[in-house]
Amino acid sequence: MAGEKEVKLLDFWASPFGQRVRIALAEKGLEYDYYEENLAEKSELLLKSNPVHKKIPVLIHEGRPVCESLIIVQYIDEVWPDRNPILPSDPYSRAQARFWADYIDKKVYEGGYKLWKLKGEELEEAKKEFVEILQILEGELGDKEYFGGKNFGLVDIAMLPFSAWFYAYEAYSGLSVETEAPKLAAWAKRCSERESVAKTLPDPDKVYELAGLLRKRSGVE
Amino acid sequence: MAGEKEVKLLDFWASPFGQRVRIALAEKGLEYDYYEENLAEKSELLLKSNPVHKKIPVLIHEGRPVCESLIIVQYIDEVWPDRNPILPSDPYSRAQARFWADYIDKKVYEGGYKLWKLKGEELEEAKKEFVEILQILEGELGDKEYFGGKNFGLVDIAMLPFSAWFYAYEAYSGLSVETEAPKLAAWAKRCSERESVAKTLPDPDKVYELAGLLRKRSGVE
Repeated sequence: MAGEKEVKLLDFWASPFGQRVRIALAEKGLEYDYYEENLAEKSELLLKSNPVHKKIPVLIHEGRPVCESLIIVQYIDEVWPDRNPILPSDPYSRAQARFWADYIDKKVYEGGYKLWKLKGEELEEAKKEFVEILQILEGELGDKEYFGGKNFGLVDIAMLPFSAWFYAYEAYSGLSVETEAPKLAAWAKRCSERESVAKTLPDPDKVYELAGLLRKRSGVE
Repeated sequence: MAGEKEVKLLDFWASPFGQRVRIALAEKGLEYDYYEENLAEKSELLLKSNPVHKKIPVLIHEGRPVCESLIIVQYIDEVWPDRNPILPSDPYSRAQARFWADYIDKKVYEGGYKLWKLKGEELEEAKKEFVEILQILEGELGDKEYFGGKNFGLVDIAMLPFSAWFYAYEAYSGLSVETEAPKLAAWAKRCSERESVAKTLPDPDKVYELAGLLRKRSGVE
């Protein structure tokens, strides 16, 4: 494929946002150079490539940076449309996929973060909120194989990286994803067997360790 | 155009998000039924059409709801591609347009809101933040006619409704958009002469009045 050798990804191993991009690149069978960023001391390349937000992930394709994970995933789908389409072709289905990916962006990261960052009453409140988020997603998934139906796509890619955090969420909050949203738990397990996902998502134990380190650093423990 | 008679818009006159959709519909020359919502007592149709966020705007096309303003604008562009394209055709330019529309979504509403909602030191802090946002947008616009270059598009549509709030921002905070971001001020004026914009954006005096009412209601005055 033309230009595929010139793909670079600036990322951080545990970032759910970076993992979205890695799953999309793997779905398309693209090779790329991976640059692990030290978020405490960001590289010149990152600061130059994303001067507005200064955040990973950044995809650099033929020298031009693309930022923000869902925008990068759509870009990848538009540049390499031939293999494993990520967005459906029908405008209404596309709008629905974008709606749910946006819902995940607005709710799941912050909702999940609170589960390992808070204590006491605030944690209890956060658990209630997170259960509501899980159940809304459970309702949307229903008995479908993937969020978009029979095809693995944008909403799956948006949500899956958070499933690697489920164990940390559960261990620090006492919440059970399987009890609250069994279909979502089964979907995560089903998707984890997909090659693009299996090779991208980190070991939940390592994510749990990272969350523990961040808890200590911010004085929660 | 097929199906254009079956377009409904649930909206609120002063909503910058709803105005984006109205500008996009006007760009495409589409007729639609407009439903003004009372946000203090939302209609059954709104609650049924957007059960997740319960927010306007909602576009209902042939009985199917589409929610979230930027997603609606992209949907309109995909369903009616023939007239006045809103997104460019090149994937990189599309990603750039999505990046800046997303930046506006994340920064301008909340940043502007603080200007008429806060007082004292908090207001001074909010002014500094808002000037930074304006200058980042000024830098991106540069000497181009529109954000995307020669063609009016997604980023213009995302940002323009906030220009109807500039007067309220200025009157309540003492900030001058023209001083801080003269190119952005000139762009807003230039765009306001475009038919789709002229017929959509509300009178800045009315927006100022609404902000005053909301200030009183929330105890700022």
